[in-house]
Amino acid sequence: MKGFGVIKPFEQVGWVDKEVPVLGPYDALLEPVAICPCTSDVHTAYDIPATPNRILGHEAVGRVIKVGSEVKDFKVGDVVAVPAVTPKWRSLDVQDSYHQHAGGLFQGMQLSSGEDGCMAECFKVNDIDMNVAKVPDGVALEAAVLVGDMVTTGFHGAELADIKFGDSVCVIGIGPVGLMAVAGSALRGAGKLFAVGSRPVCVELAKEYGATDVIDYKNGPIAEQVLKLNGGHQIDVVIIAGGGTGSIEEGFNMVRPGGTVVNIEVQSDPEGLLIPTFGSGFGCGHKKFIGGLCPGGRRRMGRLFDMILEGRIDPSKMITHKFYGLDACEDAFYLMRDKPKDLIKPIVYFDKKA
Amino acid sequence: MKGFGVIKPFEQVGWVDKEVPVLGPYDALLEPVAICPCTSDVHTAYDIPATPNRILGHEAVGRVIKVGSEVKDFKVGDVVAVPAVTPKWRSLDVQDSYHQHAGGLFQGMQLSSGEDGCMAECFKVNDIDMNVAKVPDGVALEAAVLVGDMVTTGFHGAELADIKFGDSVCVIGIGPVGLMAVAGSALRGAGKLFAVGSRPVCVELAKEYGATDVIDYKNGPIAEQVLKLNGGHQIDVVIIAGGGTGSIEEGFNMVRPGGTVVNIEVQSDPEGLLIPTFGSGFGCGHKKFIGGLCPGGRRRMGRLFDMILEGRIDPSKMITHKFYGLDACEDAFYLMRDKPKDLIKPIVYFDKKA
Amino acid sequence: MKGFGVIKPFEQVGWVDKEVPVLGPYDALLEPVAICPCTSDVHTAYDIPATPNRILGHEAVGRVIKVGSEVKDFKVGDVVAVPAVTPKWRSLDVQDSYHQHAGGLFQGMQLSSGEDGCMAECFKVNDIDMNVAKVPDGVALEAAVLVGDMVTTGFHGAELADIKFGDSVCVIGIGPVGLMAVAGSALRGAGKLFAVGSRPVCVELAKEYGATDVIDYKNGPIAEQVLKLNGGHQIDVVIIAGGGTGSIEEGFNMVRPGGTVVNIEVQSDPEGLLIPTFGSGFGCGHKKFIGGLCPGGRRRMGRLFDMILEGRIDPSKMITHKFYGLDACEDAFYLMRDKPKDLIKPIVYFDKKA
Amino acid sequence: MKGFGVIKPFEQVGWVDKEVPVLGPYDALLEPVAICPCTSDVHTAYDIPATPNRILGHEAVGRVIKVGSEVKDFKVGDVVAVPAVTPKWRSLDVQDSYHQHAGGLFQGMQLSSGEDGCMAECFKVNDIDMNVAKVPDGVALEAAVLVGDMVTTGFHGAELADIKFGDSVCVIGIGPVGLMAVAGSALRGAGKLFAVGSRPVCVELAKEYGATDVIDYKNGPIAEQVLKLNGGHQIDVVIIAGGGTGSIEEGFNMVRPGGTVVNIEVQSDPEGLLIPTFGSGFGCGHKKFIGGLCPGGRRRMGRLFDMILEGRIDPSKMITHKFYGLDACEDAFYLMRDKPKDLIKPIVYFDKKA
Repeated sequence: MKGFGVIKPFEQVGWVDKEVPVLGPYDALLEPVAICPCTSDVHTAYDIPATPNRILGHEAVGRVIKVGSEVKDFKVGDVVAVPAVTPKWRSLDVQDSYHQHAGGLFQGMQLSSGEDGCMAECFKVNDIDMNVAKVPDGVALEAAVLVGDMVTTGFHGAELADIKFGDSVCVIGIGPVGLMAVAGSALRGAGKLFAVGSRPVCVELAKEYGATDVIDYKNGPIAEQVLKLNGGHQIDVVIIAGGGTGSIEEGFNMVRPGGTVVNIEVQSDPEGLLIPTFGSGFGCGHKKFIGGLCPGGRRRMGRLFDMILEGRIDPSKMITHKFYGLDACEDAFYLMRDKPKDLIKPIVYFDKKA
Repeated sequence: MKGFGVIKPFEQVGWVDKEVPVLGPYDALLEPVAICPCTSDVHTAYDIPATPNRILGHEAVGRVIKVGSEVKDFKVGDVVAVPAVTPKWRSLDVQDSYHQHAGGLFQGMQLSSGEDGCMAECFKVNDIDMNVAKVPDGVALEAAVLVGDMVTTGFHGAELADIKFGDSVCVIGIGPVGLMAVAGSALRGAGKLFAVGSRPVCVELAKEYGATDVIDYKNGPIAEQVLKLNGGHQIDVVIIAGGGTGSIEEGFNMVRPGGTVVNIEVQSDPEGLLIPTFGSGFGCGHKKFIGGLCPGGRRRMGRLFDMILEGRIDPSKMITHKFYGLDACEDAFYLMRDKPKDLIKPIVYFDKKA
Repeated sequence: MKGFGVIKPFEQVGWVDKEVPVLGPYDALLEPVAICPCTSDVHTAYDIPATPNRILGHEAVGRVIKVGSEVKDFKVGDVVAVPAVTPKWRSLDVQDSYHQHAGGLFQGMQLSSGEDGCMAECFKVNDIDMNVAKVPDGVALEAAVLVGDMVTTGFHGAELADIKFGDSVCVIGIGPVGLMAVAGSALRGAGKLFAVGSRPVCVELAKEYGATDVIDYKNGPIAEQVLKLNGGHQIDVVIIAGGGTGSIEEGFNMVRPGGTVVNIEVQSDPEGLLIPTFGSGFGCGHKKFIGGLCPGGRRRMGRLFDMILEGRIDPSKMITHKFYGLDACEDAFYLMRDKPKDLIKPIVYFDKKA
Repeated sequence: MKGFGVIKPFEQVGWVDKEVPVLGPYDALLEPVAICPCTSDVHTAYDIPATPNRILGHEAVGRVIKVGSEVKDFKVGDVVAVPAVTPKWRSLDVQDSYHQHAGGLFQGMQLSSGEDGCMAECFKVNDIDMNVAKVPDGVALEAAVLVGDMVTTGFHGAELADIKFGDSVCVIGIGPVGLMAVAGSALRGAGKLFAVGSRPVCVELAKEYGATDVIDYKNGPIAEQVLKLNGGHQIDVVIIAGGGTGSIEEGFNMVRPGGTVVNIEVQSDPEGLLIPTFGSGFGCGHKKFIGGLCPGGRRRMGRLFDMILEGRIDPSKMITHKFYGLDACEDAFYLMRDKPKDLIKPIVYFDKKA
């Protein structure tokens, strides 16, 4: 089985040939219908000590080609959305914490992280009855492929921020995750909604998804710009979807006492995440900080599909580049790595039938 | 000073002549710019032991004509939105409970309830710095007059329900409060959003505000209709904005274990509110019930104005009937009482300048 | 296999002879070490359309005598506490609601409800790795047998009430569940803590567990007594662990606007649960009502054991009557049914070794 | 009027002579009955750009000697507990955020910060009806003087951590605030409760207040010690009441994904507060950080007094050193500054009658 992945961590990506995965009784084997490469695939390839020959890819719509003996709700031929997070639900951690970390930090993320991913001829999904959702009639493939990571991650930013009606919100970074954080914030009832970014293709879509003001970080410190636009008042919520650890400092500086800074960007600066002393009120200003990996699982996918079906959100507008066939995963990956100015999100179609 | 109010509780409304209110140091005197009669004015007039000669009306935009000695942020001539709830913020209850009930049940509601209301030549607002908000440029008068009760009440339904992304929601009753509960639910990220009502003018607007399915209660028990439309599954949230205590029973029957039934309709059935034994899981199904009077205060008004300014919601679409001048309060009140088929909400304009 | 159960629903209990249960790969077979009959066993026997020949009993410490092929953390000989709620954790409902109702209302409760219970020579526990906890050294058997229902249920009352430091709380009913609600409320930091009951053995223990005032319902309406003792002020929280639906009305009458009424008693009055119109502030007083079945699962048991080990709570004080051997389940059941004045909770020991 | 305060910021403390404060209509003038110096008095004196000649002291029981014209609930002679936080309740921020920061960061803290403090012949308290509570019969003066800062601050740590039944908790620092965080955690139902400190007088009291294990930071990294004692498992909650910014790093390293790190120590390191990259799960491990100034106000004081009256907590055990008369404030301050090994908290009595 051929797949595109990390050959040598930190150095080399490329094609590998591996055995078809063995299924447990609750698992299923899928062939990709469409996949999207993700910025975190690029991180996995070049920034962390990944497992050599690990196949990349965790954003997929797939077609079931084989099911384990105990699978009940899916059968061969079903076309399903696969979330980035497919936890082991029979884990004690699920009983009193986030399923994303059931079994340990990030252990809910299997595809491309704990196991081989979806940039392959086929891939395994664990506990399919609990983890994937059929793509409903009326949901475009381009939307379905984005629910499992981009939508659920961006929306999670708005959830963690616990946005209230009329809250003033700033989303730093308007790549695909940030754009979904913008949309999610509007869908929680934000009032003023600042978006920080500069590429025109992203700026335009941010406004369409609900941003009320767009700020270019090249024009000076973000916090200063936001305060100026907000009449000198600090804001209620900051969601960080880009900009690295510096965004955390900006976030604390612009959020009011009692406000919230949410992080949904993987922060890999070895120096740590620096919270400013004065900006945090000497650690006593009731400014909350929380960051988290996206929720997964079948029910979450179903809820997001309901929102798409009812017209609350259309994530497919973020697809800017289209590729065809397994081999194109390589080019799509490089595009994601190089992030040209007109890119939001590339898709790779595998399927003539889709 | 002339005003329209309750002459004899339970029996007679009409015009009264009273002294201009005396102001405390934090209070202000306003003349109406526009007001709306409310169903609860009708209740106050005919269903409860109101104070005789109490002037009605608690939905208003007013112009400041006099301020107390300690008022800081407002001056004569300012045009402001006055919420139905204008609490005494120097009340201990504010320190650990809802401001709506600061000083006792419903004591946050002053206009038309604790004191004379706004259907008059002028009316007093207590603690104006804390309780009213200037109508911002860009907000139509027809929207501004609705924020202080219809919008804040309907949105409060969605808040109390703590709607999550993709929740299935049913709003029972789509008069103006129910319509704002529909809009508020969509703005919290509901998925499927059932609205129960029958008058075409309301049904049409419910859909525009985000309802995905409209149910006519005349076609059978609401719970049965909702379950049928929802594939046999119970839903996450019910918001009651009409239908009386029977809606509570329907609500419990259609909500899932762990779901929420919210009440934002004044329930006056002397028999009490009946929760069904089986529908509540013998009182042990984790179905939450909560109901509450709308939040008021200046900050709330500011937040709702931000949402209107940023285009999240346009409540002015609910205005179906227009009247002019103080004297027209009487006809507007009767219209509200008689609720003709094409009515959502009447407005009375007092002001040529507005 | 011999067991004590419902022979004819509503009419007759007695001994049945059944096949030893068949185990699935995650299940285990246990022999009882000690069990307690529960008031809900009495309800199951006489008040609901139970399955004929259903073996009763869902409060147990057991010894593992056989494990399914996939069981990882337990082996033959392990002595474990079995909670009343042993859900199917691979259920979609776990992903966004209470595990108690995973698969439908109350479906988390297997023993004596969905399947045969523990008043038998042996009994099956589903998904043992997820559902039971070893009894730690230092925890008395008499405490361990109570964690799985009495402690977790009573404490859940305090959890659902979301008691804050210094809250005034009233627990209605001080049988074993109510006593644990008293203890749980004190352990959440309640201030004044009223307990309603009359039997001296319960009254004494209520005080030991943290009640500050004990009220006898025979002396007049509970709400009136509580208000009198509380200087005329309504209180923050009411937890109903006895008294039937009348307690709900009392609860609403004594709780303040913004307060909470929690129900942890199975309410079976076919007329429904009546919330008082005025006591609820016409349904708009922000008085929350919620009731729920106890949390189960292995992690919960571990948490409660930690509290016992660290000396926060000693539930074993509630054991007032002791029986020995399987045959004694019958007498213990009748004792629970007849509730003599000096009873709190009976235990049946099966085991010479324990 | 004589008082002890900051003469020259960063350099010199001493005695000042100032005018008796002028009262507004809601204010009162008090003479101290007993006061405690606080570590934050030492900070104010030496570490921040304080106002020259600012009188120190914000932990007091006082006797009312004069009231403003609008004061309703207090009269000359009343003995009251004064919290460190006495906000201006007529502030918009109270309507949607923490009263501690009403009017801006820390603006709820008036005594010794916004205005002159209590180490004086007399001192002013703003809005006395909203901010102080009579010391009830049955509460010792030594307890009453500690509720307004030590108790409310330590308990706030447990509140911000949202401790659940059986949570494993570590409190870093067991000075008086940390000791109250220990007591507060036990009173929220913690299971294992680690306390980090070394002075025997504090260690002993930590155990009495509910600590289950005491760790000496001199024996190695705290996180390592806690993990070892906890069987290798990360814990649920960390509360930082000492140790500076290094405690934040330790906290993140020992808390589980989904856990909470709470800060109740003023962090003044100009470098900022460093959150560890890996320990935070690259900012995506759902580890929440929040820190905050203590709640104040009259209702809070009443709630804490109820807890003392009902025997839930006895803070007076923390008083280790006693002084008498205004002049002794100087020695008591130096004692607090020099922190001898046997010190927890000094008290200064002003009053023969108390």
